[in-house]
Amino acid sequence: MTSDNNRNFIHLSDWDDDSISAILKKAGALKEQDFRDPVASGKVLGMIFFNPSLRTRISFETAAYHLGAGASIIQPGQGTWTFETRRGVIMDGSRTEHLKEAVQVISRYVDVIGVRAFAGMKNLDEDLEDRLMQEIVQYASVPVINMESAREHPCQALADGLTMMEHFQDNPAGRKFVLSWAPHPKPLPMAVPNSALEIAARLGMQVTLACPPEMKLDDRVLDPVGKHAEKHGNELRIEHDQQTAFKDADVVYGKSWAGPMVYTDPEKEQKLRTETYAGWTIDEALMSSTRAAAFMHCLPVRRNVVVTDGVLDGAGAVHIDQAENRMHAQKALLMKLWNLF
Amino acid sequence: MTSDNNRNFIHLSDWDDDSISAILKKAGALKEQDFRDPVASGKVLGMIFFNPSLRTRISFETAAYHLGAGASIIQPGQGTWTFETRRGVIMDGSRTEHLKEAVQVISRYVDVIGVRAFAGMKNLDEDLEDRLMQEIVQYASVPVINMESAREHPCQALADGLTMMEHFQDNPAGRKFVLSWAPHPKPLPMAVPNSALEIAARLGMQVTLACPPEMKLDDRVLDPVGKHAEKHGNELRIEHDQQTAFKDADVVYGKSWAGPMVYTDPEKEQKLRTETYAGWTIDEALMSSTRAAAFMHCLPVRRNVVVTDGVLDGAGAVHIDQAENRMHAQKALLMKLWNLF
Amino acid sequence: MTSDNNRNFIHLSDWDDDSISAILKKAGALKEQDFRDPVASGKVLGMIFFNPSLRTRISFETAAYHLGAGASIIQPGQGTWTFETRRGVIMDGSRTEHLKEAVQVISRYVDVIGVRAFAGMKNLDEDLEDRLMQEIVQYASVPVINMESAREHPCQALADGLTMMEHFQDNPAGRKFVLSWAPHPKPLPMAVPNSALEIAARLGMQVTLACPPEMKLDDRVLDPVGKHAEKHGNELRIEHDQQTAFKDADVVYGKSWAGPMVYTDPEKEQKLRTETYAGWTIDEALMSSTRAAAFMHCLPVRRNVVVTDGVLDGAGAVHIDQAENRMHAQKALLMKLWNLF
Repeated sequence: MTSDNNRNFIHLSDWDDDSISAILKKAGALKEQDFRDPVASGKVLGMIFFNPSLRTRISFETAAYHLGAGASIIQPGQGTWTFETRRGVIMDGSRTEHLKEAVQVISRYVDVIGVRAFAGMKNLDEDLEDRLMQEIVQYASVPVINMESAREHPCQALADGLTMMEHFQDNPAGRKFVLSWAPHPKPLPMAVPNSALEIAARLGMQVTLACPPEMKLDDRVLDPVGKHAEKHGNELRIEHDQQTAFKDADVVYGKSWAGPMVYTDPEKEQKLRTETYAGWTIDEALMSSTRAAAFMHCLPVRRNVVVTDGVLDGAGAVHIDQAENRMHAQKALLMKLWNLF
Repeated sequence: MTSDNNRNFIHLSDWDDDSISAILKKAGALKEQDFRDPVASGKVLGMIFFNPSLRTRISFETAAYHLGAGASIIQPGQGTWTFETRRGVIMDGSRTEHLKEAVQVISRYVDVIGVRAFAGMKNLDEDLEDRLMQEIVQYASVPVINMESAREHPCQALADGLTMMEHFQDNPAGRKFVLSWAPHPKPLPMAVPNSALEIAARLGMQVTLACPPEMKLDDRVLDPVGKHAEKHGNELRIEHDQQTAFKDADVVYGKSWAGPMVYTDPEKEQKLRTETYAGWTIDEALMSSTRAAAFMHCLPVRRNVVVTDGVLDGAGAVHIDQAENRMHAQKALLMKLWNLF
Repeated sequence: MTSDNNRNFIHLSDWDDDSISAILKKAGALKEQDFRDPVASGKVLGMIFFNPSLRTRISFETAAYHLGAGASIIQPGQGTWTFETRRGVIMDGSRTEHLKEAVQVISRYVDVIGVRAFAGMKNLDEDLEDRLMQEIVQYASVPVINMESAREHPCQALADGLTMMEHFQDNPAGRKFVLSWAPHPKPLPMAVPNSALEIAARLGMQVTLACPPEMKLDDRVLDPVGKHAEKHGNELRIEHDQQTAFKDADVVYGKSWAGPMVYTDPEKEQKLRTETYAGWTIDEALMSSTRAAAFMHCLPVRRNVVVTDGVLDGAGAVHIDQAENRMHAQKALLMKLWNLF
């Protein structure tokens, strides 16, 4: 891996397995020590939120504070200017500042820039290419962290990885990981499921994607996951029968996302997601066929829609640990990007 | 007092007189020293604001910074998710996250959680029970501070107590404290008057509640205040003639609140508050019968509606000191909750 | 200069040339050292934004963090109360707190108050008198920094001065500085052009104001600038032909502002600004007659309206350095106000 690859944290695939392992190992150690030491005193983490956040913002703020760093938050349009992103445009409309200036300037103030920019859900190609995030990377002169883009949520994946390392005593390889689609009133983006599959495959787990046929993730995501699985002697399985998928699972990762039909026929997608497949809610009956699987979810979660109270409040649920691990993983990531380990 | 009682700061009544005294004494010492020392370096104060704030947020932020701690602010619905609070509900509506997950997660990131959650003003029993605050306490795994709930504003009470300790050379006992209702264009909650009465009674002051008959505070609040007064050899007086009440007062605490009729006949309550009792504005004439009383108010205050410019800009007004004391009292409280004194 | 003059940083004219020079020199030194040292540990910078901000907020936050200080942000009406500013008024309307209380209280919490309060664009006299800013200064008991008022943007001027000092190896005197008006879809305030002219004149530069006749800045601003120019043996030139103005320029400072007609006939002003003088966009052809002039702009900038992509992305553009210099200049200013140099 070149140091250039190391500079940003946009896609998990930009970082090789050793680098990811090193981050997870460091994160685990920081957690064990309840690490709070001003090793990054004088540094500042800048965060740009094009979309809402709770865990991401607070876990990053807290990670920064524990390291002695400051945090500065930008919510475009809320007390700041709105950004133009197109190039070459005559800016005589309502957008007051070009992203090019904004990112160049912010780069001069802060020591790393975190960016949250959800999928536009209008153009699948554009979303999978992560255009906005890629523009920001081009303009930035400090490292950029993806705090959930259209295509991926690699910080969540780090937390997911840490959670599974903990759960399986540092050895998740060979365990059965099931990512199960679930119903939801709103069409959610695919970033979290994309990243969850990849981290599980790269940890050597046996990865199963459980979803209705119309909810299958894009092959541009699934193909690389399949290759990661093969490298570890596994294969990516896709299962459209939820009960079959759950059998003997060691981890069930619940998550809703919009099927690709959302880009072409959103009304039909809505009907599939909320009516046709309403029965995909993850419940105790489904969980009973697993090997006392850990239940994971990235949060926020719709109780009794995505998953029942019984599962979420049950002994197998690790979603709160998983959320806590965001902080530890990101603390390790910041330390890595700032060459502090 | 058990250490469990000590864990949260929700109601003044959860803390005994010695504990409250210790906080006030410490707050006074911190003020005198202009205490700024990173004794809480690495710690983070989380604050959840369901309602607006100026003093509370800045005084808590500043208190945290003076101690070397960080501060992280959550305004549900403003750049974060909106919270569901009901249990067992199917979350297929507009609320995106259950309070249970949110509070459990925030507890993993921060070292104390401050919460502001005003009265709903729809159901008196619910407001007096402080249901939302009690839910949060149940979900939290770190200490919770009430930054004004439906029923109480105990941090304001600490600042009020400190202000009176200062004003009467550490000996407010026996002084005449008058809490005077005043008109206001909006129906305000009862948290501040409830807490002001309690702290005055517990400091051994002679407490008089001056208000129109329809504006009397709830007996579930007044009864315990009366008991505190009796313990100190005083009695809680309720006076519906404002002039009589002010006679020989040492402290006049001005404040508007909505009468209990707001829960049953809000239009009539509005008329009483803005028209019938419009003459209750606190002015120099009323103050002239006091023993050069200190004038207190928690702020924000409606000038020339609650109190005249003359009183507020006069020599007896201590409302700015009182607001400053929020910071010192909360600094002492944070130190207490973090076992730093 | 009396220490009283030194207390606030409202208008450049409140500070004499030696004081401004000292700030710029310190700012340059801090930049060279990439100064990050908690010399202001325990101090807190409060900032009140009546208007949006990106650079100002983040550059001030970062400056504070680099010095070990905290930062607390108030956006009136966004999660805080709204402010009444009139004196003697009966506050029975929608505004919940008087500026007098708010500023007095904030003064008790923080160690300096930064205020952003744009021109109201309704009353020219009121805007030129900076009434809101002057009220705040009167109520404050800690130093107040103007983070852009109706009349001036002195922090921007410091950054502009630093940028020109750098560009001309600490000797900008005698260089030709052209402030060029440019078109814009919105009527912008005059604070930045006012301050840019003044700092250039006070650095001994030959100052030319290039603008259509209807866009001339107010004589109450131009007269003192003229006097500063004369003191340095120069004269303030006003040129209505843009091409003539640009000839042999060493610096072109691009900026749009609304002509004074905005106060009396806003529709006509809009037409002049967006149609009649649409040709004033700064482009490569105009820049070609300069002496390879540095192009400056305070940002945010409307690309291809105020200035072409070609100029902004060209070798002469220093607008990103200029934005970075906000942070260094403000760091020096904070250190000055806190007696740290």
